[in-house]
Formats: sequence, C-alpha cells, structure tokens
Amino acid sequence: MTTLRDALRDFCAARDWHRYHTPKNLVMALSVEAAELVEHFQWATPEESLALAPEKRAEVADEIADVLIYLTELADVLGIDPIAAAREKIVKNAVKYPPPL
Amino acid sequence: MTTLRDALRDFCAARDWHRYHTPKNLVMALSVEAAELVEHFQWATPEESLALAPEKRAEVADEIADVLIYLTELADVLGIDPIAAAREKIVKNAVKYPPPL
Amino acid sequence: MTTLRDALRDFCAARDWHRYHTPKNLVMALSVEAAELVEHFQWATPEESLALAPEKRAEVADEIADVLIYLTELADVLGIDPIAAAREKIVKNAVKYPPPL
Amino acid sequence: MTTLRDALRDFCAARDWHRYHTPKNLVMALSVEAAELVEHFQWATPEESLALAPEKRAEVADEIADVLIYLTELADVLGIDPIAAAREKIVKNAVKYPPPL
Repeated sequence: MTTLRDALRDFCAARDWHRYHTPKNLVMALSVEAAELVEHFQWATPEESLALAPEKRAEVADEIADVLIYLTELADVLGIDPIAAAREKIVKNAVKYPPPL
Repeated sequence: MTTLRDALRDFCAARDWHRYHTPKNLVMALSVEAAELVEHFQWATPEESLALAPEKRAEVADEIADVLIYLTELADVLGIDPIAAAREKIVKNAVKYPPPL
Repeated sequence: MTTLRDALRDFCAARDWHRYHTPKNLVMALSVEAAELVEHFQWATPEESLALAPEKRAEVADEIADVLIYLTELADVLGIDPIAAAREKIVKNAVKYPPPL
Repeated sequence: MTTLRDALRDFCAARDWHRYHTPKNLVMALSVEAAELVEHFQWATPEESLALAPEKRAEVADEIADVLIYLTELADVLGIDPIAAAREKIVKNAVKYPPPL
C-alpha cells in the first residue's frame, strides 16, 4: 500500500489536485464510491451477489479500486497508516467479540 | 494487505461469520463505515477538516480501519485483488485525465 | 405525501416491482440516491454549493426527487408515516438541543 | 411538507444553525442518516427486513424522520419543491420504464 500511496501522490501532484483533496472532500468522494459498489448489489438477492457475471465482476473490481484509492489518499493527508490502523482494530474487535469456546 | 486478508479470514472463521458475509451484506457494511467517516467531517469547514484534534484523529483512524477491513473482506469473497485493481485503475485514470503539459 | 405514496404504489404495481421492494433493498437504493446528491457537491466549496448553475440545480432537484421517492416507498412497506415521524423527531430534538436563552 | 419546512426554519433560526446549513454540509448529513437506515438492515435477510420487531421499527421510523428532515432543509436552502420534483420524476420514469402490455 505504500507503493500505491506514492503513485497517488505523484498522480495528484502532476495534476495539481491536492488543493481539492481536503479530508472533507475526500470522505465525500469515498462515500460516493462506496455507494457505487452498493448500486451493483441493490436489487440482487444475497445468492445472486455471490455469483457475478464476468463483466459485472470487472465493474465491481473497478469500484473496489476507487474506494481503495480515496481511502489511501484520505489516510495520507491525515498522516494515518491504514494497514496499522486495521491491525489495531482487529485486536480491539477480538476483545469486543470473543470467539465462542 | 494479504496478511490483513488472512487475519480477517481467521477472525471470521473463528466466529462463523462467513455466512453473513455475502457481497450484498458486505457492501452495505462498507457504506455504513464510509458514512461514519463522513459524520466526522459533516459540519467542519474544509480548513478544520485538515487540523484534527488528536482524539478526533484517533476516531477517524478507527473508521478508516473499518472501511479497509470490509473492503478487504468484500474483495476476498469476490476473489478480487484490491491492490492490483487500484493499480490498473490509476493507469486508466492517467489516460482519462492526462496531466497538463 | 399521501398522493405521492399512492402514485408510487400504482407505479410499482403496474410493473410488478413490489417483489424487489423489500426494506433491505429500498434502504440500499435510498443510500445510493443520497450519494448521487453528495457527488454533485464533493469538490465544491461551501460557497459554491450555495450558488448552483441552473442546469446543475435541475440535476440536484432530480436527485432530491429520487431520495424522496425511495423514502416514501420504504416508509410505505414498513407502515410508517414519514411526516408524523419527522414531527415527533423535531419535538425530541427541541428537548435535546434547547435554544439559547 | 410545507408545514414541516416552516417548523424546521423556525427550529434552525432559534439555534442560529443556518450558517452550518450549506448544501454541501446538508448532503453530507443526509447521506449519514441514510447510512444509519442501512445499518439497521445490513445483516438481515430480505425476509427479516420485512418483519421488524416493534422497538426496531421505532428506531427505523426515527431514521426515516432524520432523512426527511435533512432532505426538507436541503430542498429549502436550494429553493426546490421536493414534492413537485418527485411528481415530475415519476412522469419521467413512466416514460423510461413503460409498464408491460
């Protein structure tokens, strides 16, 4: 993910997009991409959502990419390491939701 | 991210949560976490969103973690590599939005 | 809003869409339409968001319509009166956030 | 809905909240409330989503109220009549999705 982060830094610097990339704007963009993922599944049954046609699957992969891109940019402008944050969250969740014995 | 993916597989297997983790349900959970990120910034000015107090920043890191966790799980059940998808998307975006000369 | 509700009932009945309109699917569709509203404002400054060009304003009106349509359908399948619910919520909010003296 | 709109104008004026209520901020708040609706249904099966327990149903009514409140405020600051917009949208949808013969 650090390679991805660096690629995105270069991409935005070359286009002078950093001025638009406040955390406020990036969370909006992130939530819009998350909704585009939701859109692919809104009328599907849970079963259908597990068996995507190849072209649909490619579109979903594209939306997953968009969410990851904005998430990486958001974490970067805030100086947060997303992988480290996720690892800490899993530890917290393991305490909050102990596995059945 | 593959380490994160494997940790999440173990976490869900230990709790028998896989039966809830259809793509349909996971995109819903992902969008809810994205909205919890939005909630932190909804009344902030763009400037305020760049200067978070430490405790607020920790809460935001937690929400970033939640989005990354559900995104990793979603990509996993669909057999999609999110980093590879993001890398391909950046190439597409570079064609769609060429940098100014 | 009851006229709107009745028009939507007829519309869906004529197309046999009721079988798709479970609360689960309708909240997904509602959140997607809410995100389409967000998309119109994601890169705008707060000031720009107040001064929409006429064609943009028409597009925003269309998205507001979509949110209201799915909200009306959701409330209908759940047997909830949205106007009455909003009125009760304002009373609760008035207690929670008393006006300054 | 005009009575609701007027009640919300008074409510916000008494608290001097209008300065926060730019369209940009209101669409964010609206999308957050839409996600709180999604949260109630994210792990439910479509069938379970149709048969809510009374206390759950009351919580959902509360979230429906929140969405309607922000939608009314957003439409008001933009000078849009949401009921008229919805009516026009239904006419457009009837052309786009003609009923089966």
